[in-house]
Amino acid sequence: MDYTLLNGINSPADLRRLPRTDLKKVADELRAYVLESVSKTGGHLGSNLGTVELTVALHYVFNTPEDRLVWDVGHQTYPHKVLTGRRDRMGSLRQLGGISGFPRRDESEYDTFGTGHSSTSISAAHGMAMAAKLKGEDRKAVAIIGDGSMTAGMAFEALNNAGVAHGGLMGDVLVILNDNDMSISPPVGALNKYLARLMSGSFYAAAREGAKSVLKNTPLYEFARKFEEHTKGMVVPGTIFEEFGFNYVGPIDGHDLDALIPTLENLRDKRGPQFLHIVTKKGAGYKLAEADPVKYHAASGKFDPAVGFVKPATPPKTTFTQVFGDWLCDMAEADPRLVGITPAMREGSGMVEFHKRFPQRYHDVGIAEQHSVTFAAGLACEGIKPVVAIYSTFLQRAYDQMVHDVAIQNLPVLFALDRAGLVGADGATHAGNYDIAYTRCIPNMAVLTPADEDECRQALYTGFLHNGPVTVRYPRGAGAGVVPVKQMTAQAWGKGEVRRQGQRIAMLAFGTLLYPALEAAERLDATVANMRFVKPLDAELVAELARTHDALVTVEDGCLMGGAGSAVTEALNAAGISIPVLQLGLPDEFVEHGDPAKLMSLCGLDAAGIEASIVKRFGGKPQVVRASAG
Amino acid sequence: MDYTLLNGINSPADLRRLPRTDLKKVADELRAYVLESVSKTGGHLGSNLGTVELTVALHYVFNTPEDRLVWDVGHQTYPHKVLTGRRDRMGSLRQLGGISGFPRRDESEYDTFGTGHSSTSISAAHGMAMAAKLKGEDRKAVAIIGDGSMTAGMAFEALNNAGVAHGGLMGDVLVILNDNDMSISPPVGALNKYLARLMSGSFYAAAREGAKSVLKNTPLYEFARKFEEHTKGMVVPGTIFEEFGFNYVGPIDGHDLDALIPTLENLRDKRGPQFLHIVTKKGAGYKLAEADPVKYHAASGKFDPAVGFVKPATPPKTTFTQVFGDWLCDMAEADPRLVGITPAMREGSGMVEFHKRFPQRYHDVGIAEQHSVTFAAGLACEGIKPVVAIYSTFLQRAYDQMVHDVAIQNLPVLFALDRAGLVGADGATHAGNYDIAYTRCIPNMAVLTPADEDECRQALYTGFLHNGPVTVRYPRGAGAGVVPVKQMTAQAWGKGEVRRQGQRIAMLAFGTLLYPALEAAERLDATVANMRFVKPLDAELVAELARTHDALVTVEDGCLMGGAGSAVTEALNAAGISIPVLQLGLPDEFVEHGDPAKLMSLCGLDAAGIEASIVKRFGGKPQVVRASAG
Repeated sequence: MDYTLLNGINSPADLRRLPRTDLKKVADELRAYVLESVSKTGGHLGSNLGTVELTVALHYVFNTPEDRLVWDVGHQTYPHKVLTGRRDRMGSLRQLGGISGFPRRDESEYDTFGTGHSSTSISAAHGMAMAAKLKGEDRKAVAIIGDGSMTAGMAFEALNNAGVAHGGLMGDVLVILNDNDMSISPPVGALNKYLARLMSGSFYAAAREGAKSVLKNTPLYEFARKFEEHTKGMVVPGTIFEEFGFNYVGPIDGHDLDALIPTLENLRDKRGPQFLHIVTKKGAGYKLAEADPVKYHAASGKFDPAVGFVKPATPPKTTFTQVFGDWLCDMAEADPRLVGITPAMREGSGMVEFHKRFPQRYHDVGIAEQHSVTFAAGLACEGIKPVVAIYSTFLQRAYDQMVHDVAIQNLPVLFALDRAGLVGADGATHAGNYDIAYTRCIPNMAVLTPADEDECRQALYTGFLHNGPVTVRYPRGAGAGVVPVKQMTAQAWGKGEVRRQGQRIAMLAFGTLLYPALEAAERLDATVANMRFVKPLDAELVAELARTHDALVTVEDGCLMGGAGSAVTEALNAAGISIPVLQLGLPDEFVEHGDPAKLMSLCGLDAAGIEASIVKRFGGKPQVVRASAG
Repeated sequence: MDYTLLNGINSPADLRRLPRTDLKKVADELRAYVLESVSKTGGHLGSNLGTVELTVALHYVFNTPEDRLVWDVGHQTYPHKVLTGRRDRMGSLRQLGGISGFPRRDESEYDTFGTGHSSTSISAAHGMAMAAKLKGEDRKAVAIIGDGSMTAGMAFEALNNAGVAHGGLMGDVLVILNDNDMSISPPVGALNKYLARLMSGSFYAAAREGAKSVLKNTPLYEFARKFEEHTKGMVVPGTIFEEFGFNYVGPIDGHDLDALIPTLENLRDKRGPQFLHIVTKKGAGYKLAEADPVKYHAASGKFDPAVGFVKPATPPKTTFTQVFGDWLCDMAEADPRLVGITPAMREGSGMVEFHKRFPQRYHDVGIAEQHSVTFAAGLACEGIKPVVAIYSTFLQRAYDQMVHDVAIQNLPVLFALDRAGLVGADGATHAGNYDIAYTRCIPNMAVLTPADEDECRQALYTGFLHNGPVTVRYPRGAGAGVVPVKQMTAQAWGKGEVRRQGQRIAMLAFGTLLYPALEAAERLDATVANMRFVKPLDAELVAELARTHDALVTVEDGCLMGGAGSAVTEALNAAGISIPVLQLGLPDEFVEHGDPAKLMSLCGLDAAGIEASIVKRFGGKPQVVRASAG
């Protein structure tokens, strides 16, 4: 493909100088460019192919960056990046030092709002629209949101708020519902069925007009007209978006520039909350992706577009996600009370097989983390044993429900926290750095940090048996490669274990950093404990290690602030033990996207980094610093 | 009032034995009993008077506790408590050792789900309904939810999920929308307007039938019938609840037992998701409360029902809430960029005056914490300076938005965290114990803990000036009584101050516990620092105090786990300083309702408790415990 037109577009202003008749070719080139680009770097694919025409139309019609585009979730912004001066940087996508896979305010003035988690766009755009009103600036704020993202409660909170005036002010916000009948997993829930009805009802607008003309010149006409007037949005069908105060237009074909452009031009010139419903196809223009949008949601690495995604010749290492998926099926087999819950992450959480085998005990509740947790609490009240599979970063959405609905009532809900710690290419928005800090402060909550694949299986089993709330956290990808033992064996509750007996320095490792810690310990002849539990913490083991060593080093792949290391020092303080402690963990900053191993190394959390930190602090032999008496 | 009938009702079974003709009198007695009871204990009033008939009808029609009632928010459950065996315990309401002001599973088998925060009931009831299906049990789960609670996103997440089948199973859940046109503050948002249209449209059902009969025997009839069939829920108006898959009935008068009982009986016998819309009056039957439902939402203490709430003879002490409200107005006067945001807590957050004076810069977004924070982030992107006034416990609902939308983008949003620490009568569901732990682990986030009223004003000012996210936390009620200085003066960023110079022991106080710490220090001749900032922590001061003392004592009114004391030990560990530290703060358990001062004393956080803990640990003079070398 030649990129004749695309090569001339270095900003949306260049695009806007083109005649409308060129836009179809721009879109074709853009689609080809995105496909070629993702085939070299990996990254999200289907969503980006689906928004090519929309992106062209938006930048053509709106005066970006003066008008604000807020892309929900943000994994559909590759075409937007290409058109806004980042064409040449697409080869660095999602790599360390390269451009992000999501919009970022510090990357471009066209990225008006950083996204990554879903369903934030309407709130943010409403904020921007209200700011414009307050400042007397005339600009539009546009939120582009998928039908999957629309299932999250905060999208409704935003509609409810943006659809009415405040202090006499009404923001000029345009919400574009990009309806591709997909979130990452296949769509679920009542809203999806409703949107399907809207889509299948394109005859409806015509029929509504038709019915009126049939009635015309009959006594019924006046009745119908009055009726319509009095019950606006009721008898004359209002979409639910109209009920929320938006002017609803659609559905229209989101790949048809001849429909998109005039409609957007029309909406651009309207005041107050506007709602455009467009229908697109995930993976549009790439047959393989159109045929299997779940598979082609994202490419894990390079691929040949002519061939599509292929299974690697050597099978990849077993991931923690797979370990969870296998355990879930085995546990469900063994205990009929088990129910598995996911907020729209069937594939990502390893639940495809479980769904197939236990359809009645599988619940994909949509992108609805809050509901997922309280729903689990309701099940647990009735003797069901719910397992909520959720990414660490997304559990942040259900924090209150975890405290208020699960922990206060001490209900046995097991949280399987995937993607704990750094996540790599997805970057700071998806980092699972905070869960140890934000879960361990909740009374009744147990926090388990398995060190490897087998430990993960056994920790899940241990947590499942516990009669109270438990989180088991494990990172993205594969671990040390310890094949899980089929037989499930409960771990001793709240107990760690010494994995290497050394001298002078004792390392207390939480989670998968046990292995680099062991490696560092070989060189330092340090003791290493696999703590397993952040909470309840093995305070006896902590005291024993303090008693028998000169210094302690805590190691974890979560944030230092308030993390497992602090749990150790709290235990020391509670026991009245004073000993030098070095806390190693993730720094108090947002760590950018990049290769996970490289990032961990930069954070000093590989074996060499752990060793270097210990040597730096304690020399070969620990130096005890004591405060002098005042 | 005599309570002839009520005295004979010790469980709902007793109620169900009565003839229906007695129920009106039961309701009258129940209303009088609740009013009398609340007039003696204080507590929620308006919502309880509004649900008297509904409570009678529910327990009469449903087979409680086999059928599950889940009361959203739960502050309307006093009539329910009276009818379910707790009549005689109403005098102990919200007091230490007494019954809770909310439903609690450990208090009664009729309290099927603990509530306190809003909008959880549909999720929980759906969970219970699905559990019944899975277990093959035939029971109904009923969620009773107010129109205010319906504005929170998680209610929509639950509707979206409960309205469809899962693996062929569909729960028998009944959602009762108790529409009293109120949340705690006056209602806001598009949904409220929609409900008002539904209410005013009681003619609508009749009209719909009427239209059909007018058409009958005309060619249009067949057209209309077909049309209706094809577009079910579209041309024939579906309420939005029908669009979500529920069978919608209503609105009916929620005070009319003759309407309620047959309707509930009818719905009880239906399968699948049912939705009943009832209309009630907050404060019904008590004229003063009907006339001013905002004022009569809750009684802070005893009152004479004949007179109503009166201003106390001696004006109460200025609360932190008032300090915030005054500051907000002054700051808004001084800086036109300021916008104030509340999720439905205008009164509780002290924003009535601000709303009056700055209507365009006041945003009540409804019970929508998630949206409130991302909306603020959108405003901040455009140079507005948003202040989000929110209770510590409710910020848990917006945790992800705080991380993902505010902190990652380092946007200047000021969080004014009211009700931090223990809250007293509302108990564990509303405790603000966790915010220090869950906010300080977020990069870019500053956390300020003012020690008194003037410090609160200056901390808010300091936070407002900071170009990044800041939380300023302050407790419920009044503080030490330090009158705020009108002049606003920025505090030195990240700096604490020594308030008392003593010897041997240095106490590092965060927040209002500075004052009991100072009191204890007088007796111990200890040094006391007012740390002011949890983050950025004054690490220099910490090091200096460690250098010049034998031991440190941290004091805070937040959870010990991951709290400010742990921030201090992290700083010590980072600096390589080893010194005995005693951490004082809230224990790792859910603290029950009761008098706040008494609770703080029980937690050992009054002056005597602080002194006792220090003496117990360090004797009169600190004993340094050192780990011996291994």
